[in-house]
Amino acid sequence: MTREQLIAQIRQKQSFLCIGLDVDINKIPKHLLETEDPIFEFNKAIIDATHHLAVAYKPNTAFYEAYGLKGWQALEKTINYLNTRHPEIFTIADAKRGDIGNTSAMYAKAFLEDLNFDSITVAPYMGKDSVEPFLAFQNKFTILLALTSNEGAYDFQTNETGGDELYKQVLKTSKNWKNSENLMYVVGATKAEYFTGIRKIVPDSFLLVPGVGAQGGNLEEVCKYGLNKDVGLLVNASRAVIYASNKTDFAEKAQAEAAKIRLQMKAILNQTQ
Amino acid sequence: MTREQLIAQIRQKQSFLCIGLDVDINKIPKHLLETEDPIFEFNKAIIDATHHLAVAYKPNTAFYEAYGLKGWQALEKTINYLNTRHPEIFTIADAKRGDIGNTSAMYAKAFLEDLNFDSITVAPYMGKDSVEPFLAFQNKFTILLALTSNEGAYDFQTNETGGDELYKQVLKTSKNWKNSENLMYVVGATKAEYFTGIRKIVPDSFLLVPGVGAQGGNLEEVCKYGLNKDVGLLVNASRAVIYASNKTDFAEKAQAEAAKIRLQMKAILNQTQ
Repeated sequence: MTREQLIAQIRQKQSFLCIGLDVDINKIPKHLLETEDPIFEFNKAIIDATHHLAVAYKPNTAFYEAYGLKGWQALEKTINYLNTRHPEIFTIADAKRGDIGNTSAMYAKAFLEDLNFDSITVAPYMGKDSVEPFLAFQNKFTILLALTSNEGAYDFQTNETGGDELYKQVLKTSKNWKNSENLMYVVGATKAEYFTGIRKIVPDSFLLVPGVGAQGGNLEEVCKYGLNKDVGLLVNASRAVIYASNKTDFAEKAQAEAAKIRLQMKAILNQTQ
Repeated sequence: MTREQLIAQIRQKQSFLCIGLDVDINKIPKHLLETEDPIFEFNKAIIDATHHLAVAYKPNTAFYEAYGLKGWQALEKTINYLNTRHPEIFTIADAKRGDIGNTSAMYAKAFLEDLNFDSITVAPYMGKDSVEPFLAFQNKFTILLALTSNEGAYDFQTNETGGDELYKQVLKTSKNWKNSENLMYVVGATKAEYFTGIRKIVPDSFLLVPGVGAQGGNLEEVCKYGLNKDVGLLVNASRAVIYASNKTDFAEKAQAEAAKIRLQMKAILNQTQ
């Protein structure tokens, strides 16, 4: 998918909602456990109920690897379902990978080519040659961790080095990497006050924003400082949407929750864009 | 496995060799491609030929995920083979994971409990709450990236912040985390001159050392500055051993290569311990 297609989808749906498919088998409705592939059935129902309200889906690979072969199969079925039934949707493998060059190339092939995700989250610690193999894929995006939504973000990411916090160095340095136009960044919603400084460094980049909802981030705050002329934000909600109910009405309730967030987004876009 | 069991194995074999099972289907002997599971057959043959010379095996998950379901199955079979046939061997999932707390907990369960690896490599960028879920497992080890062997290590890891390079901060800060006795660290062999400073911060910790061989690191240099009273090093070789030949004699040639490295290790241990 191109950047232009993503923006067009956002404009058309008046939404920049990403739904995190972090499926914990202990939290999904009991009646699904009788099906052959409960995780995929859950995802399919959530996608069918919300795809007109969301522009992106983001399965976190941890939740699939936790179930071994069956989990991996559910991930494959989920991305195939998205790619065949809803090709307009932007898909994110939330994998947080990153390794030496030849190894990162294997991950890039696995997620961007074989599974055919539009994008993958990548950790920056190992630097340029660990990220560039992901950037080499045309019309695919590498979403680099910059400032994450968790408490541990303050352990290293906000440490000052040479007058700049580490996360700002990540933003600045990565802009010089080959094919850096394929970069997006993870910036946690729990740190809305940081968006102003971040937008000074990467005014045009898309930011993937986790942490709204269950983790306490505030949508209006994030938009106030984070929106750019192309919207430039993908705001993720996981638990608040997908676990809105754990009964047979789970998809309906997820839809209602997604609709609520999308309505807020629509209002914000109407005010600002 | 306990730390004491690992040390006893090293003393008994007079080796601290770790073999990286980074299996690329394009590099393994052609005759294996006719078998049902070429990757597992390759690993099995390598393990059978080298287990008396090595103390640890380290499959890098990228090389398995690159083959989807079949790859994941080969990984499962490989770790099961090691756990059942060679329970004395220390096993490392080279996965470089790390995510927010509840997600890291899923990865930890997947690799340390379900697949039953003795250890997993983890990236430090997201800080304390992204690593502690791995540390919670008793007699399992979390091998935190400190100073990696690649060129990109100089992008962020060696940046000074508050008088200390980032990788030193990672070492110092992580020592205060809960169950930090379960920590080991990745330190690249290509940066032998850094070992002295690292040993001042973590004198007792085991260091997993990639980069000897194909990446240009020097074993004697690493040992000169890196060995401690319990040996404290696991030196990894991947390509140099497993791709010593791509003909039917591949296992034999891998054995010869492993024996060569182990002989150097034995000599070093005899001189220093």
